[in-house]
Amino acid sequence: MSQLSPDKISLKEKFALFNEQWEGKVVAEMNGMYIKLARLQGEFLWHSHAHEDEMFHVLEGELTMRFRDRDVTVGQGECIVVPRGVEHMPICPEEVKIMLIEPKGTVNTGDADSDRRVEPEWI
Amino acid sequence: MSQLSPDKISLKEKFALFNEQWEGKVVAEMNGMYIKLARLQGEFLWHSHAHEDEMFHVLEGELTMRFRDRDVTVGQGECIVVPRGVEHMPICPEEVKIMLIEPKGTVNTGDADSDRRVEPEWI
Repeated sequence: MSQLSPDKISLKEKFALFNEQWEGKVVAEMNGMYIKLARLQGEFLWHSHAHEDEMFHVLEGELTMRFRDRDVTVGQGECIVVPRGVEHMPICPEEVKIMLIEPKGTVNTGDADSDRRVEPEWI
Repeated sequence: MSQLSPDKISLKEKFALFNEQWEGKVVAEMNGMYIKLARLQGEFLWHSHAHEDEMFHVLEGELTMRFRDRDVTVGQGECIVVPRGVEHMPICPEEVKIMLIEPKGTVNTGDADSDRRVEPEWI
């Protein structure tokens, strides 16, 4: 009998596979979306995504999501969904581990012209 | 200035709002998908979803996902994506807290004819 059943994904094991920051690594795909894990530290850049909502789930550490009207601090065990079109800039002085869920075609730097753009890599 | 920025979501605070088991509560929406929280305990029923992939992220406890070919045990900090069309039955002797991500129209009992079907409720 062929194995139809999927394997589980250990987030801890996946995080052990990379140290790069600001490069979401793909661990699963579903319904045209990628489940990514990422390490963030420092400041990213102002950007938005015209057609994609993004969910950030903080697994470890504390992330400040800066919006044009205010900062929202997102700690361990908390999530934030950034709707399409809303400008945002992630900031975190200490390293944060997150799960990021977004449509497959989402560009990490959104509408910004930046050399921080990366293509998603599966791990 | 109107507030464009979204609020964060505390999973702990949301779990404090309900005790029902096997009824995923919606805490966010993105890209046509619902982010749900659920408490599971006992056995669900065999079912599959013809057109939807489902992601289970175990936040607390241990979930066994039974497939036709094997059981996969998913513990805290682990995830499993059940692809569309794959029959599965969640089992957990002790209560498990999960985050469930699936398309908005997903029926919890899938293709099964069951009185355990529930409509998703926002909390």
